[in-house]
Amino acid sequence: MPVVVIHGGAAVVSPDKVQLKLEGVKRAANIGYEVLQSSNGTALDAVEAAVKVMEDDPVFNAGFGASLTLTEKIELDALIMEGTRMKAGAVAGVSKVANPVTLSRHIMEKSEHVLMIGDGAHKFADEVGMPATKPEALVTEYACERLNYFKSFMTAVNSGMGKSSDHDTVGAVAVDSAGHVACATSTGGITAKQEGRVGDSPCVGSGGFADDFIGAVSTTGHGEAIMRVCLARHITGLMQQGMKAQEAAVAGLEYMKNRVQGYGGVVVVSNKGDIGVHFTTECMAWAYRKGSVVHYGIQPDDDLTEDGSSDSSPL
Amino acid sequence: MPVVVIHGGAAVVSPDKVQLKLEGVKRAANIGYEVLQSSNGTALDAVEAAVKVMEDDPVFNAGFGASLTLTEKIELDALIMEGTRMKAGAVAGVSKVANPVTLSRHIMEKSEHVLMIGDGAHKFADEVGMPATKPEALVTEYACERLNYFKSFMTAVNSGMGKSSDHDTVGAVAVDSAGHVACATSTGGITAKQEGRVGDSPCVGSGGFADDFIGAVSTTGHGEAIMRVCLARHITGLMQQGMKAQEAAVAGLEYMKNRVQGYGGVVVVSNKGDIGVHFTTECMAWAYRKGSVVHYGIQPDDDLTEDGSSDSSPL
Repeated sequence: MPVVVIHGGAAVVSPDKVQLKLEGVKRAANIGYEVLQSSNGTALDAVEAAVKVMEDDPVFNAGFGASLTLTEKIELDALIMEGTRMKAGAVAGVSKVANPVTLSRHIMEKSEHVLMIGDGAHKFADEVGMPATKPEALVTEYACERLNYFKSFMTAVNSGMGKSSDHDTVGAVAVDSAGHVACATSTGGITAKQEGRVGDSPCVGSGGFADDFIGAVSTTGHGEAIMRVCLARHITGLMQQGMKAQEAAVAGLEYMKNRVQGYGGVVVVSNKGDIGVHFTTECMAWAYRKGSVVHYGIQPDDDLTEDGSSDSSPL
Repeated sequence: MPVVVIHGGAAVVSPDKVQLKLEGVKRAANIGYEVLQSSNGTALDAVEAAVKVMEDDPVFNAGFGASLTLTEKIELDALIMEGTRMKAGAVAGVSKVANPVTLSRHIMEKSEHVLMIGDGAHKFADEVGMPATKPEALVTEYACERLNYFKSFMTAVNSGMGKSSDHDTVGAVAVDSAGHVACATSTGGITAKQEGRVGDSPCVGSGGFADDFIGAVSTTGHGEAIMRVCLARHITGLMQQGMKAQEAAVAGLEYMKNRVQGYGGVVVVSNKGDIGVHFTTECMAWAYRKGSVVHYGIQPDDDLTEDGSSDSSPL
């Protein structure tokens, strides 16, 4: 049963990035799966490890390599949630931590709060001994190029609403052999967003949701649309009413398209290890590992496979 | 059918504040109802007007008179949502606006975003011409007293988890004669909260939810618990499965108590004008107006009434 499902963001992917994104999601799936196979490795540990490796990978819009605001700032959002007690931790608008998913986990486990923002979150990171990062250290040349492209050719409005934008948030869901589920999501948000804008990723029920009685979901795409329909919670609701994970993923995204004209993608796992992967954007890099085989893809009908047992090298 | 339902926060209410809180929620219900009766008055206008009057009223923990963080700061959160297109606007961690609900509405109507935080939200408030307020101008002597009391006698953890704490967030739901619904919620958060802590209030699906196909919900209580179960969205889900508003309010709060050991209160309205009011905390000031009669209460079994047609004086 143990399985981990990864997404690397619902987005348009330029041809030169396809291979890098596929390598990145496969690596995350393998690393997450290794955690699940280790003694005492939980679904929560697996989603954190998987998202962390994508935060460290500059090809994704999270952690190092995150999108920049219109004013050229780094503002990161993340969420982690476990399904047993439905505990959650999240951050929004942070710039001084390289791994917002790990800070989210510290908030979940070491504070009485769920969501912390900005400098309050930075203070907490310091209190729990996380090393401070300079925001500049998270900025890549590619993120600057994307910002300049958006500044020249379109507004964030246009980029935000369509099928063809760059919401390459990362996320993971997992179920472990004890039947516990977890999810994690991490993002730099929309390129050229207004300072202070927060999307769906850190909001429980929008960017992710986990409940051992049902399963776990991580979302990506147009954050404003995802928030307005509580997409992750909507999908677990459909599963509770009897839909399989894949059916619920498809129905949830259709509902979002029809109700609020929003596009995105999701990865889903049920508490039985049943898998859902779907997106209404042009592309979404995804991968999952169950046993020794990694399934992965990036175009709508992809279902590629490879042996994952030899590839779990860190970045 | 037009109806507006108000809450003044699920909390322990000290005896000297009972009458002031009841006056405050009745006033808000009457003002919201007047909006619904006016030509072109929508549910959205009604919930904004009702919450605004409570933000201006120092007896409530929202706007003027909001709770203070452990470091004696003002950090306000709010949400507004309409059910027709399910558009939403929200703010978190703002201190320089007297009416966060109105800033939320500007974000909903004049930006491409849903949630804005901290200084980014302040900048946006300035851009749309909202007058800036000094944070000190929102601090009341009573808020300072509450902070000192909490500092002396208990931690925010203890205050947060129990039935007996001071989460006197305000909120409103309404349905207008066209069958459109809306919700609004506004809060200063938990007294003595960590700087940067954000609760349920500004999160769509947690602090509130509105969908013309179902109804609208505004929540109050232990924010962390409310977020973890997406209480507002949970309750509309129950209504969609056939429960009446009152039944769904009770079932949603029971679920939250059982699943994550959290206490709170909700006001609910269906798109047919069916009403739900319930709380699992010791008290919650509430009021609703339908026709000329105002119903109100603060203890679990209260259902007091008075003629509302003569009392709609502003604060």
